Amino acid sequence: MILPIVFIFSLLSFSHALVQDFCVADYKGPVGPAGYSCKKPAKVTADDFAFSGLGIAGNTSNIIKAAVTPAFDAQFPGLNGLGLSAARLDLAAGGVIPLHTHPAASELLVVGLGTILAGFISSDNTVYLKTLKTGDIMVFPQGLLHFQLNKGGSPALGYVTFSSPNPGLQILDFALFKSSFPSKLIEETTFLDEAQVKKLKAVLGGSG
Amino acid sequence: MILPIVFIFSLLSFSHALVQDFCVADYKGPVGPAGYSCKKPAKVTADDFAFSGLGIAGNTSNIIKAAVTPAFDAQFPGLNGLGLSAARLDLAAGGVIPLHTHPAASELLVVGLGTILAGFISSDNTVYLKTLKTGDIMVFPQGLLHFQLNKGGSPALGYVTFSSPNPGLQILDFALFKSSFPSKLIEETTFLDEAQVKKLKAVLGGSG
Amino acid sequence: MILPIVFIFSLLSFSHALVQDFCVADYKGPVGPAGYSCKKPAKVTADDFAFSGLGIAGNTSNIIKAAVTPAFDAQFPGLNGLGLSAARLDLAAGGVIPLHTHPAASELLVVGLGTILAGFISSDNTVYLKTLKTGDIMVFPQGLLHFQLNKGGSPALGYVTFSSPNPGLQILDFALFKSSFPSKLIEETTFLDEAQVKKLKAVLGGSG
Amino acid sequence: MILPIVFIFSLLSFSHALVQDFCVADYKGPVGPAGYSCKKPAKVTADDFAFSGLGIAGNTSNIIKAAVTPAFDAQFPGLNGLGLSAARLDLAAGGVIPLHTHPAASELLVVGLGTILAGFISSDNTVYLKTLKTGDIMVFPQGLLHFQLNKGGSPALGYVTFSSPNPGLQILDFALFKSSFPSKLIEETTFLDEAQVKKLKAVLGGSG
Amino acid sequence: MILPIVFIFSLLSFSHALVQDFCVADYKGPVGPAGYSCKKPAKVTADDFAFSGLGIAGNTSNIIKAAVTPAFDAQFPGLNGLGLSAARLDLAAGGVIPLHTHPAASELLVVGLGTILAGFISSDNTVYLKTLKTGDIMVFPQGLLHFQLNKGGSPALGYVTFSSPNPGLQILDFALFKSSFPSKLIEETTFLDEAQVKKLKAVLGGSG
Amino acid sequence: MILPIVFIFSLLSFSHALVQDFCVADYKGPVGPAGYSCKKPAKVTADDFAFSGLGIAGNTSNIIKAAVTPAFDAQFPGLNGLGLSAARLDLAAGGVIPLHTHPAASELLVVGLGTILAGFISSDNTVYLKTLKTGDIMVFPQGLLHFQLNKGGSPALGYVTFSSPNPGLQILDFALFKSSFPSKLIEETTFLDEAQVKKLKAVLGGSG
Repeated sequence: MILPIVFIFSLLSFSHALVQDFCVADYKGPVGPAGYSCKKPAKVTADDFAFSGLGIAGNTSNIIKAAVTPAFDAQFPGLNGLGLSAARLDLAAGGVIPLHTHPAASELLVVGLGTILAGFISSDNTVYLKTLKTGDIMVFPQGLLHFQLNKGGSPALGYVTFSSPNPGLQILDFALFKSSFPSKLIEETTFLDEAQVKKLKAVLGGSG
Repeated sequence: MILPIVFIFSLLSFSHALVQDFCVADYKGPVGPAGYSCKKPAKVTADDFAFSGLGIAGNTSNIIKAAVTPAFDAQFPGLNGLGLSAARLDLAAGGVIPLHTHPAASELLVVGLGTILAGFISSDNTVYLKTLKTGDIMVFPQGLLHFQLNKGGSPALGYVTFSSPNPGLQILDFALFKSSFPSKLIEETTFLDEAQVKKLKAVLGGSG
Repeated sequence: MILPIVFIFSLLSFSHALVQDFCVADYKGPVGPAGYSCKKPAKVTADDFAFSGLGIAGNTSNIIKAAVTPAFDAQFPGLNGLGLSAARLDLAAGGVIPLHTHPAASELLVVGLGTILAGFISSDNTVYLKTLKTGDIMVFPQGLLHFQLNKGGSPALGYVTFSSPNPGLQILDFALFKSSFPSKLIEETTFLDEAQVKKLKAVLGGSG
Repeated sequence: MILPIVFIFSLLSFSHALVQDFCVADYKGPVGPAGYSCKKPAKVTADDFAFSGLGIAGNTSNIIKAAVTPAFDAQFPGLNGLGLSAARLDLAAGGVIPLHTHPAASELLVVGLGTILAGFISSDNTVYLKTLKTGDIMVFPQGLLHFQLNKGGSPALGYVTFSSPNPGLQILDFALFKSSFPSKLIEETTFLDEAQVKKLKAVLGGSG
Repeated sequence: MILPIVFIFSLLSFSHALVQDFCVADYKGPVGPAGYSCKKPAKVTADDFAFSGLGIAGNTSNIIKAAVTPAFDAQFPGLNGLGLSAARLDLAAGGVIPLHTHPAASELLVVGLGTILAGFISSDNTVYLKTLKTGDIMVFPQGLLHFQLNKGGSPALGYVTFSSPNPGLQILDFALFKSSFPSKLIEETTFLDEAQVKKLKAVLGGSG
Repeated sequence: MILPIVFIFSLLSFSHALVQDFCVADYKGPVGPAGYSCKKPAKVTADDFAFSGLGIAGNTSNIIKAAVTPAFDAQFPGLNGLGLSAARLDLAAGGVIPLHTHPAASELLVVGLGTILAGFISSDNTVYLKTLKTGDIMVFPQGLLHFQLNKGGSPALGYVTFSSPNPGLQILDFALFKSSFPSKLIEETTFLDEAQVKKLKAVLGGSG
């Protein structure tokens, strides 16, 4: 079949007016409930869809012996509006990602290296625990308290992805003890002892 | 304008094949990610869309001096698939709904009676606190830790509604201390002291 | 377990870049299909999440002996993007919220005081009627014609919530008789008599 | 490039376990909030995705001189779960699709033949009217009252599509006057005169 | 029942603050993941909801003997945010809409005139083919490869609607041979022969 | 604060009636548009939320020198209804995942090992290409043609996640040449030469 040159032009006007298949974040524009404004398509490049920040190990020389490196829509513009995001977990031996939730997303963990003990707790107070090896995956349903812990003797690496470009992250200890949540209110709403609250606030720098 | 009898029949066949505008829960059928199976429309009555359980005060003769009475899709079949649900909060003087999250919904509180101190904590550890009077409302964004506390000298009543027929409810203390979450793991993932964990487990009946 | 000061800093950079868990309406920014633009997190306060307008009884000294006070996202900025909204209904004895629909949301009514006769009509022309007492709740599936009527001898109070921050409200009589809908077209599309149309237009101030 | 036979087998196991890209309605299975159960893929044929019912003109020998032929998920199994549906409108000269709403969908009308006067009313009681010719299209936002009227001297044909496989259809006159909605309640909630209500109930066969 | 003038004013303040039921595209404002910014309601007219571009036959004097005229949200502002869009297909005798996908929507085809052979292929490589006559409809599930072909001896006309205001359109031949996709990469990722790739690139104007 | 035993019982009835936070697939129940039926909560275990299949390298001894191992909801029951899924990509030196689409999801690739050249094509025929190293990530917007190619001299490993538990997978070559798509129709809808079509059909085992 011979296709003459005329075909080239025939649908040009058609394609021309189409809007984009994606919405790369323009961090200077307004933000709405569905995410960031879209960069103009003509300014979008392949670099907007790739992110190299997860290739660098996080610094685990800290008390939790762990680091979390996010690639949410705030860091990775190509994710905006696409329904997923990612983060890298580095866990030195004995390292832990403390109990936390993602208010707006389910999470899927892929163990890239090492052995990770992970778990979550459901609304009916059932605890689901699994020891995961390299290549294993685990899913944490949206909004539930969960953690990851390196029980092995060597570093562990995890990649987590989320069902939202902006999953949020609420670390329990930070919410309670690194915030301005008044100690009296913490005690009244958690039944923790005053001494316990004050001790952790001192460590984490909370006020109130 | 005179409308003859023939009009009565003209669109009958049209309406006849339509499926329903709602999906009242059939608790005997299978459940899916979007909710319960639908009751056959012919069996649905007005009673399926009303619920009288929130008209009865919950029993606050307990340690938290509070009670929560849910009207989620598991209790109120008419809500199934409709995107909202409700609960009644009864708070005696000094009563508290302890720190908790709803993994799958935002919450809107209407204070029906009394004075309620309510608050939530966001992902960046900011604490938002408000003292609410009768008729005031407050919204708690999805998945974030929040609480309600009756600081007044008389009983308070609240009606809460949720942006999902099945919002879930994770009470922090119950997840930690009323579950089988191993004490050692709690300590490692929350930095709480062993004594604190054991004390609250003893009270709440947790194991592990 | 002793947590040294270093822990304070270890995850600071992590939390820092996170975007917000909510999108408080910035009424000066552009509006999109998903709602208002988000206020910058640094400018958000607890007041954005609370609304006291529903604590004040609406004025029922009118012909319908009723008043509706909305707390939609246009009035209550904290609701923006969160999937729910509210309104207060005041019904004097004999008061009525006339037949209406919410084009974009299901509704849940909590009777705060008094006795309310409520009902809705489905696509197959079935009428669902219930007499509700204080504390009773009823759900009205999205987009269907419904009403609330105070059949009791004393005032009634209702709180309604919606499965959208912007549910819309189309009052049948207003759409027909308080608009510029040409009388001839009303008659042709509703089969109402000319006299009836003109009478109600005169009362409600419709034109056309 | 030469591709040996081995390639044929290499990904067979991969494709094999995939579930379907669609969910053709199995009318015998349970229904849920998201639609009908899915037919097993092996039983699905091309016929499930096509529907010839809209090729036949509806009978307009009735008082509205019009007919509506639906292709919703209840009639057209391939639409189930796919987010759209259709209907055919036949309007003889002077025919009308009376004022109605679709509780769960926006509508897009394509005029296939003739001239149609169409309109809708918004929540703020603004009336949007357009006279449409063959090939013109018009969109009716979700849940709002609208109508179509053939003002021309010859038959008109319209194809309407909806943003849901199950848009619902509430015809105002049928909801009021062809149902069991008690006349007294109609009068109280619409301010229509008793005589008007009784007259239309007599014609349309309503009770109550 | 007599409705005094006071009724006119009683709910005015109520309606006044309501936001709109729709979001007509303001092409000058920012775009977000959910679509264009909304035009201010006061500037919206009935013309925003109607579009006459589909009333004009596309030019089929080209190699595919076919034309596609889109009415997506980029062309038809009233569609913005409403969940559907449309296009007109003109197919001269022997004309074809080449194999293509809509990345973000399912499609429903109504044959307005003539006979169209249409088909799609599913993830398990099953081919679903149907010959459609005037008035027949067919649905193409989201994202799957499909085509339309006029096998009849006279022109055919189709109206297609989509389950998104911005469905996207990826024509296979254009993606491969009218783009800058390097020929070597095309061969490596499609197993097409070099000669085939170069021949079609020459015709369609691809580079790389 | 002393919490007496009575607290243990006080909210038991409350938690008891709650439905689950997740919907683990029950492969024996009916499937609906939103996914599989839910397993009864009492039968759910931690194993349902973990999957070890991605820990095993796929067999790349085939013509594409690559293997894809899916963990979609059909393989991994815990994902059902949670909005994401995963797969493992193994690419020997020179291996390729041929041009394909996921009709129902965006994709996020994490390079676990090696160097991968990846790319996608948008609706306006722009090609976005990136060479990714270990730890780099790239996002492929929903429904667009894309590929992954190991240009390095050693094996590469990738983990991909999707914004749906059932993303679908349409491999271009399989859709065209491993199906029953009639050769004549392929030629007419893709403009490929007959010889090319027949050659690839012979290799891939297509019919028609």
